[in-house]
Formats: sequence, structure tokens, C-alpha cells
Amino acid sequence: MNIILVQAKEIQGNCVHLCDHRAEHIVKVLRADVGTRVKVGCIDGPLGTGDIVSINKKYPFQVELKVDLFDNQRPEAHLDLILALPRPIMLKRILSQVTALGVGTIHLVNAKRVEKSFWGASILEPMEYRKHLLQGLEQAVDSRVPRVVIHEKFKPFIEDFLPTIIRDYASRICAHPTGDMKLGEVITPKKGRVLLAIGPEGGWVDYEVEKFQDQQFSCCTIGDRILKVDTAVIALHSQITALRDILPIEM
Amino acid sequence: MNIILVQAKEIQGNCVHLCDHRAEHIVKVLRADVGTRVKVGCIDGPLGTGDIVSINKKYPFQVELKVDLFDNQRPEAHLDLILALPRPIMLKRILSQVTALGVGTIHLVNAKRVEKSFWGASILEPMEYRKHLLQGLEQAVDSRVPRVVIHEKFKPFIEDFLPTIIRDYASRICAHPTGDMKLGEVITPKKGRVLLAIGPEGGWVDYEVEKFQDQQFSCCTIGDRILKVDTAVIALHSQITALRDILPIEM
Repeated sequence: MNIILVQAKEIQGNCVHLCDHRAEHIVKVLRADVGTRVKVGCIDGPLGTGDIVSINKKYPFQVELKVDLFDNQRPEAHLDLILALPRPIMLKRILSQVTALGVGTIHLVNAKRVEKSFWGASILEPMEYRKHLLQGLEQAVDSRVPRVVIHEKFKPFIEDFLPTIIRDYASRICAHPTGDMKLGEVITPKKGRVLLAIGPEGGWVDYEVEKFQDQQFSCCTIGDRILKVDTAVIALHSQITALRDILPIEM
Repeated sequence: MNIILVQAKEIQGNCVHLCDHRAEHIVKVLRADVGTRVKVGCIDGPLGTGDIVSINKKYPFQVELKVDLFDNQRPEAHLDLILALPRPIMLKRILSQVTALGVGTIHLVNAKRVEKSFWGASILEPMEYRKHLLQGLEQAVDSRVPRVVIHEKFKPFIEDFLPTIIRDYASRICAHPTGDMKLGEVITPKKGRVLLAIGPEGGWVDYEVEKFQDQQFSCCTIGDRILKVDTAVIALHSQITALRDILPIEM
């Protein structure tokens, strides 16, 4: 936890009283004391600092912070994600990892190779998935919570919903092991937002790939190594970031 | 499991008899039958196919394959990794994920912020860590097992061992949150091998960073978001691959 995130409604005057895992973190990991300054962010709001004005180092841990939020929240991430619903245990890790990397919206969608039972998982409850998003923000020192949108049917998602948003993106990428494009051919350096679609274990089926192509998605391969979804999400996000934002040296 | 990996000594004539998790995978996941062709690779050797000549689909699962290994093993990965020993549960995942991405040698080293107890973990036994390497190969359809080298003391590693290998690398990168270089300034497209050093949770301490710099490592930041080690390993590997191997479009 590299930043203490608080809700706006927790701030009374300029003070916040913590008595949960955040207080425990300040006591046990940061080993902080009265006067210690910690990074603080308001969820979906500004960033700043908090000075500890009182602390109870024994269970139940309690910390009172005087907060000063002077920094704008970070700009919105350049990437949104369409993700075929993965196995719940993998989804938890993906949510926190991709939030740490930076993502605007995560669309969880059905696909032919998604196991039906995954749709009954408790992680699809907002109260549950939000925890993993906040973990990612706490790791990456960010306060902007990604949106999660759940689409239980593929066809209405791709035919009705997608056309309403695709104009927002400079690049639309459907990751596919046998894709005919490379990321370097599709990503425009420094420009526009990216919408990245990643399939389930085993990949998208042909029908799904065609539907993405109908919506002007480029079908990109990440190379000839087959990756698990959790690895592929980080790898593709990172490659897109590298190609979009890191200026290559002169060649 | 996208390839069935066998040891050379398991191949008798051109047949392999499987009776472990590989047979179970062929029966339960691939739902294969006599005549089905599966991908086969010889560990640290060539790749090819296996035709099922007999199969017992009930427990204990047994499969006999007639193998034909006609493809050279993949070329060695362009990246070697120096990794401050992470928490054992995280190390397991990193080993299989970075193997899936492709890595030549993994040097596990001590660092100031590595918890001493990690050095007693069973995952440091070759029999244990090899399982996770093989999982990564089975995922990525590769047969070349990464080398793992364990360095329990930082100073002999950096002062005595590193100088014997650094000439093999075109780029030497020490990942550090406050690094003064960007990956795009350090990676030479298409050229030479890369040695990447990633610190423990909390990062390398100044002394360690200086020692890497003494050995001609460039100190690179991955951006202003702090990542967990398992995310950082995949993210850096992928960014280096993108900058090194994916030709950017004209700018």
C-alpha cells in the first residue's frame, strides 16, 4: 500500500479517522508515529498528504490524519479493456494488476469459451471487485477507480453497445494468437486512446473475431508464444504503453 | 498445457509411454483418442508431434505416443533476468510466467530488502522450481528450460560474478522507481541480448543501485506507477520486447 485512500465522506473538516486495514498498515508496515507524513488520496479525487495527529499502536489500531489534498488526480488511462470473463481467482489478480498499470474501463464480456459457472462468481458483485481495484490503486499511487461494466451476452455487447463507444478510440485491438497484424502496425505513438480485447483461455472463436473485425478492430498477435490470460493482459498493456508512450531511439 | 514435454530418456524407439499428469491432460482436457495428434517437445531438445497409439481413459490414465520430432528447439530468449529473491508464492508464479514469455537465465539474488526467511523456502530446490519452469514451457509451446542460478550473497554476485558475464549483453538495465533513464533510451532495436535486474518489494537500496551502475547498468524507471514485483517482471519484459523486436511505424 503506497498511498492511503479515503472516501470524500470520511474527511471531516480536514481530518480522517482510520480504524480498519489502513490504520493497521500505518502501524504495522509503515511503523509510523505522531508527526509522520503519509501519502493520501481521495477516491476519485485529488492526491496529497496526511500528517498523523494521533495513533493507537495496539489492537484495535486507530489513526487520525490531518489531510492536505493539493494535487489533481492522475489523468485518465489511455487504455480500456474488453476481457472475456476469466476464472474468478484469475480475475481478482487481473483486476488489481491492470488497475496498477492504469486502465479506464474494464468491460467483462461473455464468449464461447467462457465457462458458464464463472458468471455466478461473487467477484462480479461491485462490493467484491471494488476491493481488488482499490488494491491496485493503493499499489500504484492512484485515486481514479476504473469502471467495471459487465456484459453477460456477447451479441448485444458487440452489435449494440460497442458501436456507441468505438469512435472514442484511435486504436482498436483484438488480441488473437493467429492475428495477422503486429502491435507496432496498429498503435499510433502519443495519440488517442486504445481499446484492447483479450479472449478467454483458448482464445476467441472465429465468429467472435469476425464480429470484432466488423467493428474495425485489428486482429493482433503478441508473437508465437501462447500466454495465459493473466500474463497476456499485462504483456499487451505494457507493449502498447511502450509503443505508444516511450519514444524509441533513432534508428 | 499446449505441448506435451517429455525427457529424451522417456523416448524408447520412437514411442513414449505417459502415465502421469500428462496422460491425464490428454484424456480429460484434450479428450483425445487413438489417432489424435498432439504437439510434443523433447525437454531441451527438438519439437514435433505425437500420435496416440493407445489410451486408457479411466484412472490410472495411460497414453502411448508415437513421436516425430522434426523441428529445432526455439532460439534462446533475448533476455536474462536478475531478480531479488521474492516471496516464495510470488516466485512460483513469476517463474512460470517469465518462462512463458521467454527467458534464458534467471539469477535469484539477495538484496537488503529481501526477507531472510525466503532463503529457506522449498521453491529454491531444483526439483521444486523446475516444475514451474516446465509449466511455463508447456503454456508457451517451448522446450528450452531456463537456467536458474542462486546467489545467496549480493556482494560476491555483483563484484565477482557479474563482471564475468556482462560482456554478453548489449543492454544492461537496473529497474528502479527513481531511475533517470527510460527504456526507450537504453534498448537497441533488433540487437543483442538484454540483462534486466529487478529489485525486491520496496526496491533496491542506494548501495545496490550504485553497484549495478558500477557494472555499467542503466538505471531505468518504468514510469511513475509503483508496481508489485510480479507485475513489474512481466511489464518490463514486455516493454523491452516491444522496443527491441516490434518495429515501430514511421513517425
